[in-house]
Amino acid sequence: MSEPAAKKLKVDEIPNHLSTMDETCKKNLVDIDNVQSQLDKLSEDAAEEILKIEQKFNKSRQPLYARRNTLIQLIPAFWATAFLNHPQLSAMLSEHEEELIGALKQVEVEEFEDIKSGYKIILTFTENEYFDTERIEKTYNLSIEQPVSTTSSIKWKAGRQPAKTDLAEGQPVTFVEWLNENIPPDSDEIAEVIKDDLFPNPLQYYLMPDVDEGDEEFNRF
Amino acid sequence: MSEPAAKKLKVDEIPNHLSTMDETCKKNLVDIDNVQSQLDKLSEDAAEEILKIEQKFNKSRQPLYARRNTLIQLIPAFWATAFLNHPQLSAMLSEHEEELIGALKQVEVEEFEDIKSGYKIILTFTENEYFDTERIEKTYNLSIEQPVSTTSSIKWKAGRQPAKTDLAEGQPVTFVEWLNENIPPDSDEIAEVIKDDLFPNPLQYYLMPDVDEGDEEFNRF
Ligand SMILES: [Ca+2]
Ligand SMILES: [Ca+2]
Ligand SMILES: [Mg+2]
Ligand SMILES: [Mg+2]
Repeated sequence: MSEPAAKKLKVDEIPNHLSTMDETCKKNLVDIDNVQSQLDKLSEDAAEEILKIEQKFNKSRQPLYARRNTLIQLIPAFWATAFLNHPQLSAMLSEHEEELIGALKQVEVEEFEDIKSGYKIILTFTENEYFDTERIEKTYNLSIEQPVSTTSSIKWKAGRQPAKTDLAEGQPVTFVEWLNENIPPDSDEIAEVIKDDLFPNPLQYYLMPDVDEGDEEFNRF
Repeated sequence: MSEPAAKKLKVDEIPNHLSTMDETCKKNLVDIDNVQSQLDKLSEDAAEEILKIEQKFNKSRQPLYARRNTLIQLIPAFWATAFLNHPQLSAMLSEHEEELIGALKQVEVEEFEDIKSGYKIILTFTENEYFDTERIEKTYNLSIEQPVSTTSSIKWKAGRQPAKTDLAEGQPVTFVEWLNENIPPDSDEIAEVIKDDLFPNPLQYYLMPDVDEGDEEFNRF
């Protein structure tokens, strides 16, 4: 788990531009390097212990997520409502895509076993106008040098697959475009919102008064 | 250490806009809220365990930092060299301030006892043209609602105290201006560089070839 310790500095390896230093100074630099190696080792050990704690708690969360999922399935349009009330997520829905969100039956986020190397977002849909695919998995692989995301195959209905967006020019703008793209994990803001905000506590969004339907006096402009 | 648990949702406290829901649904929402409270508790417990680990390792680092400090004092201009070779820190030095950095004898970063509520940066100077103060402490207090920084008093030499910068308009631009200001911890980038980058491993910067003096062919433009 820990990185191999950095190569130790030796007196005869002091960089060229310092070669005129006196020998005592060189010896002190080597000693400082030795202290730095011990500090690095402490940081690696700390990171390892912290990861173990995160793994332990992630395991403790699983039965609670499973119980929550069972309860959520008993509430009509729970995920659709939470999604529509979420400021960033609802902002990406075109009028027409709000109907697709009505078909969003289940949202799951699964960390990879070791927590640190990646995660999956799994969205389950009922019958809808966009695709004949019940379960869409978007996988964010962080353990490789150039992290990538992949998407399980989607069987689009005729004429419903959006055009590929030019990722170099910015994020896809709508939810359907997001489903259709493999955005690098570091820049997939929607994935991060689902993983770090919606999934940890969807109830807070479900319970929000719907701004479209509240207080008509303030809404009619 | 943990926040008080959020108030639990009760069936008769379901928000108004959901009041027409059937009673079974309301009961399920209350059950979901109960699961969310258990998830929140797990996150608080995880944060507490992780903080304890950070505190333990911070304690283990102290004798190593003390030993490193002793060794550093044996090397002429160690901190000045590290500072001048650091890309962000050297960028803030006017030509004249490079002389002040030559008087930088010691850099220390001390976390508050509990790690999370703040830290101090302590800079020790020898005789210099800017101030008659040997030890300057900049304290970053993060435990209060509006985190603040404070600076121990500096006895400026005549005409050497810089004008106060308008913090609302951006960061102070030079090192001396930075010493003279109390920048909110969240936006004090220099403090963060010293705490999270220079202090954890100054040796890597000390050892860097000095770009000003290297390869003159690439430098004369
Ligand atoms: Ca709405
Ligand atoms: Ca230089
Ligand atoms: Mg569900
Ligand atoms: Mg020192």
